[in-house]
Amino acid sequence: MKNIFQKVSIIGNGNVGFHLIEAFCDAGIEVTHVLVRHSINETERNVAYVNSYSELPKNQLVIVCVPDDFITEVIEQIDESCPVAYTSGSVNIASLPKRNELGVFYPLQSFSKGVQLEMGEVPFFIEANEISFGESLFELAQKLSKNVKYASSEQRSKLHLAAVWVNNFTNHLTFIAQEYLESEQMDFEDLKPLLKETIRKIELNSPRESQTGPARRGDQKTIEKHLKMLNESQQEIYRILTQSIQKTYLQND
Amino acid sequence: MKNIFQKVSIIGNGNVGFHLIEAFCDAGIEVTHVLVRHSINETERNVAYVNSYSELPKNQLVIVCVPDDFITEVIEQIDESCPVAYTSGSVNIASLPKRNELGVFYPLQSFSKGVQLEMGEVPFFIEANEISFGESLFELAQKLSKNVKYASSEQRSKLHLAAVWVNNFTNHLTFIAQEYLESEQMDFEDLKPLLKETIRKIELNSPRESQTGPARRGDQKTIEKHLKMLNESQQEIYRILTQSIQKTYLQND
Repeated sequence: MKNIFQKVSIIGNGNVGFHLIEAFCDAGIEVTHVLVRHSINETERNVAYVNSYSELPKNQLVIVCVPDDFITEVIEQIDESCPVAYTSGSVNIASLPKRNELGVFYPLQSFSKGVQLEMGEVPFFIEANEISFGESLFELAQKLSKNVKYASSEQRSKLHLAAVWVNNFTNHLTFIAQEYLESEQMDFEDLKPLLKETIRKIELNSPRESQTGPARRGDQKTIEKHLKMLNESQQEIYRILTQSIQKTYLQND
Repeated sequence: MKNIFQKVSIIGNGNVGFHLIEAFCDAGIEVTHVLVRHSINETERNVAYVNSYSELPKNQLVIVCVPDDFITEVIEQIDESCPVAYTSGSVNIASLPKRNELGVFYPLQSFSKGVQLEMGEVPFFIEANEISFGESLFELAQKLSKNVKYASSEQRSKLHLAAVWVNNFTNHLTFIAQEYLESEQMDFEDLKPLLKETIRKIELNSPRESQTGPARRGDQKTIEKHLKMLNESQQEIYRILTQSIQKTYLQND
């Protein structure tokens, strides 16, 4: 029997790898080896940082935490005796080199090395080419989080796409607001309570119920005034989002 | 001397009015009268709900909390002895009927009747047609919040525009993500930890540093894949935001 529940190896020490190492150690799962491209001095955890695939223990689960474009070449170099799982939201399991035990261990969250988070709240999505391996990964994820589900590659890529809207795009809109205020010598800090409340309301109610503003109430005068205050590329985004809001609620009011 | 610090009247019992009444009462400022269009039974606070302008006490501050389009006609009906302030983000003070003491008491926040919030964290922006009245409003706001500033009508309308991005537009993007997931029989709840973390990171760092995702890293393969998964109007927004992110970071990397 493989000891995938007690011991794991990790490839990659980026944002995801870093947080998984922390979370496994906190959950009492031993991360024996971490494969990294460059030597690093890491003394906090009882983990061996290695630079060569041959140093990874055989017959031990390897979790691959590298950018999507490198997953195939990384997996090809892992010993055939090792079950392998990867952490990507958008890479289809069928697109990867075949092996005995191949699976997905996808935490739906935005990780940054410098920013601590509650792994117990992070939804994990599991997929595998073999049922019992999938079950093992599922149980492993349950040691880290209370929200673990199975998801096909197709479902996972939908979650990943939704995450782009919720994370990447909302972040960019906030950036536009910051840039705009700063160009007008005003303080973005004053917007932060609103930002926080915006998200709190979505959690309490829903984005549909929470929608307010000139587009929602059809206040064309304010919309025109705002457009005049923006530059061309800001105008383009303002206009298209305003139209989208108007279309959404006109259809349903 | 007018007792504007101890007693106020409020016009409107919408989202803003409701929360201001609560906050004033909690701060020990007496809201003696609230003018509403329709009779309401409200027993919790020691407040008189009235339906006629003539019932508002003379020589007492009136805070107007009505939609932008009604501010002018409301102000015209308030007794000349009363100092008046209104709570709008976008209405210019110069556009309103002249009177002795006219000012702005603008809380930059998204209020909903059913949702409690920390008024002490809400930024208030003050403007007045007369310096000492402005100072009085400033002091009054300080009884409610630790973040009070003066802002001209022009500055205030910029803050209001930035608020549209941070609140209305981010909310709509989240709505699109929810609608998309639900149309695919998936659970929007699984996105909520990510949404929360997105905003927490913006608060900890800045939206510029926090930007990640396919657009940020120029991952054209994932972008194309995502576009194929969306309907036409979603595609339009996805495309324009992706272009905007790429333009932002190409210029600066």
